[in-house]
Amino acid sequence: MTTKIRKIDNGSITTPKGFYAGGYEAHIRYTHKKDIGIIYSDVSATAAAVYTQNVVQAAPIFVTKESIAKENKIQAVIVNSGNANACTGEKGLSDAYAMRKWTAEKLGIADHLVAVASTGVIGEYLNMEKVQEGINNIEYERSSAGAKSFAEAILTTDTCEKTACYQFEIEGKQVTIGGAAKGSGMIHPNMATMLGFLTTDANIDEKSLQQAFREVIDETFNQITVDGDTSTNDMVLVLANGKAEHSMLTEEHPDWPVFKEALRKVSEDLAKQIARDGEGATKLIEVSVNGAKSKQEANIIAKTIVGSSLVKTAIYGKDANWGRILCAAGYSGAEFDPNQMEVYLGHILLFKNGLPVSFSEQEAIQYLDQEIVEIKVMLNNGEAQGKAWGCDLTYEYVKINASYRT
Amino acid sequence: MTTKIRKIDNGSITTPKGFYAGGYEAHIRYTHKKDIGIIYSDVSATAAAVYTQNVVQAAPIFVTKESIAKENKIQAVIVNSGNANACTGEKGLSDAYAMRKWTAEKLGIADHLVAVASTGVIGEYLNMEKVQEGINNIEYERSSAGAKSFAEAILTTDTCEKTACYQFEIEGKQVTIGGAAKGSGMIHPNMATMLGFLTTDANIDEKSLQQAFREVIDETFNQITVDGDTSTNDMVLVLANGKAEHSMLTEEHPDWPVFKEALRKVSEDLAKQIARDGEGATKLIEVSVNGAKSKQEANIIAKTIVGSSLVKTAIYGKDANWGRILCAAGYSGAEFDPNQMEVYLGHILLFKNGLPVSFSEQEAIQYLDQEIVEIKVMLNNGEAQGKAWGCDLTYEYVKINASYRT
Repeated sequence: MTTKIRKIDNGSITTPKGFYAGGYEAHIRYTHKKDIGIIYSDVSATAAAVYTQNVVQAAPIFVTKESIAKENKIQAVIVNSGNANACTGEKGLSDAYAMRKWTAEKLGIADHLVAVASTGVIGEYLNMEKVQEGINNIEYERSSAGAKSFAEAILTTDTCEKTACYQFEIEGKQVTIGGAAKGSGMIHPNMATMLGFLTTDANIDEKSLQQAFREVIDETFNQITVDGDTSTNDMVLVLANGKAEHSMLTEEHPDWPVFKEALRKVSEDLAKQIARDGEGATKLIEVSVNGAKSKQEANIIAKTIVGSSLVKTAIYGKDANWGRILCAAGYSGAEFDPNQMEVYLGHILLFKNGLPVSFSEQEAIQYLDQEIVEIKVMLNNGEAQGKAWGCDLTYEYVKINASYRT
Repeated sequence: MTTKIRKIDNGSITTPKGFYAGGYEAHIRYTHKKDIGIIYSDVSATAAAVYTQNVVQAAPIFVTKESIAKENKIQAVIVNSGNANACTGEKGLSDAYAMRKWTAEKLGIADHLVAVASTGVIGEYLNMEKVQEGINNIEYERSSAGAKSFAEAILTTDTCEKTACYQFEIEGKQVTIGGAAKGSGMIHPNMATMLGFLTTDANIDEKSLQQAFREVIDETFNQITVDGDTSTNDMVLVLANGKAEHSMLTEEHPDWPVFKEALRKVSEDLAKQIARDGEGATKLIEVSVNGAKSKQEANIIAKTIVGSSLVKTAIYGKDANWGRILCAAGYSGAEFDPNQMEVYLGHILLFKNGLPVSFSEQEAIQYLDQEIVEIKVMLNNGEAQGKAWGCDLTYEYVKINASYRT
């Protein structure tokens, strides 16, 4: 199945048919870079979204939820960085509505076909003059340059753009899924917002898309952790405009697994890029848990290990510290028998039969010198598996986050 | 009620009648300090204990559980530092039984009257020759010097001993509760074990003691966090030998609330000392949540705030970052209305009515310059309250935990 899916190295959110994108420097942000971005589909697209679980939710989250609720269609997305428009009360909400309205007017579409997202400082009002200027002046194009401008515009303190693109065929028609994301860069004074935008020309049933997207997000974006904090603005959105012109995909379609796997690949690719670019990170850590009783159990163990400050500092220090890995698995809340458990660092076995296994420290240090570190846990307790991604915890993380807001 | 309870500044685990303690350097640990400690009561004491919730539990945890299960009585506690005797399989278990047996033989008491605890490196076998030599040679006395030796012997990389003592009267009889603990120092290669030992001469019903202890631990030791990791060896134990000779305490006794409050005070005192001595910490952070729907909700919000890496780095950086506090409360899992919430740093109001409040940055920085930082959250959602304690996240934390095991 997966051999049918190709990664498109230079692909992006504008690779699927009918999608346009762009970015513009509106000076919303205090540093010089593009800070307002747009995605546009020349036909309205079936939409699904997953939002932050934080009780405190920013104004754009409310507005986007309202847009999608109307008819599950979105044709354009407007995103600003530099200001999260969170904890901004009534005025913040009317500002988010204004962003939506101006974008709809610019494109000549209905308000409810526009999604709004923001990331950046919280507790400050948007400078709406600059936002309006940005919306008026922003251009969008069906090109990789447009997609790159968008990918740049949504970044805060991320150190690089995050994009992914995969292609496959359905009924002989080429189908593309592209994506752009921003992650764990922290902006003064605030928090790591995760934003993800996926575009596809697949023709897909609304309910099937929602269901698949929720499942895929749970295994990818929801399985990354930088510091365990969940922001007020997190949002991942997928738009499917149907321009690939195959017959409508539902769970019953023979190529459904291919579509879902491609959706997962794009999401996992972006999620790993976010984890790798965690604040101050020098390494991507991937934890795989196999042989669990359930997928949920595998996921929680994997995420607890990759989220442990002690594991994260050990990896930073190139320390093959199986004890911290075992300990984190132990307090994850999952039930398993530690005597049945095996722990590997890459291919190096560290722990088995309830006891540590002697291994070459030199080999382990060499392995830990790499930029990608894999921790593998075998529970021998069932058939389910799960993965999670994170990064090491470094001096630089403390430096970035201990600095004054002002 | 609380005015009846006096803090005894030089008090310790040997201040209650009938309790003896001591420590000895048996060279179990690689550095030079006492590393085996003993507590002895001249009559057997009613015991209650709370253990780590980690699925991976060390051998001494099994042995102590077995001892207490026999008749809920303990007369002696043997503790070593330097080696946690965790992940040591069958041999580790028989080593823990041997520690128990040798201690019982030395004191001429039954095996099941001895509790065993260990803290330190995991995955390595204890040097039983040194342990036996330690048990043979350790002395115990009814003096503050003996208590100090014990308090020192249980430390790993803690920077200071942690003791507390409170007194009150019941039926005209003086009752004392003393305690010693070790905390969040991390020993190569492994994890922050929390150990706590409380002694009291109170005469108390076994079931009442268990119930009260569990409740008190939930509000104190279980409300501290240094890095969110729960060790394989955590144990808090209370021994009540009845030598104060008042009538037996149960929930119906008129002075029950006084006893329970004193038990809480000793536990909170030790818990705060552990939090303040968290690895690399420069500050104690206390978070109070008021006006919650339930105590459980107040506790989870308080603990989530104090456990947030972003809050911890902000406090280290003297940044009055209300956004991170609000955000952590928001993802705690508790349900509340952020628009009803107030956030204070000490007496400085930072957030109210869903919006930030303007405050003097200078005043906030001055406040954050102190060694104890209080964050107060008012939910205006009910009557319940809760507290949690932690410390800031510093460069030194990363340094301590990123260093090689060897």
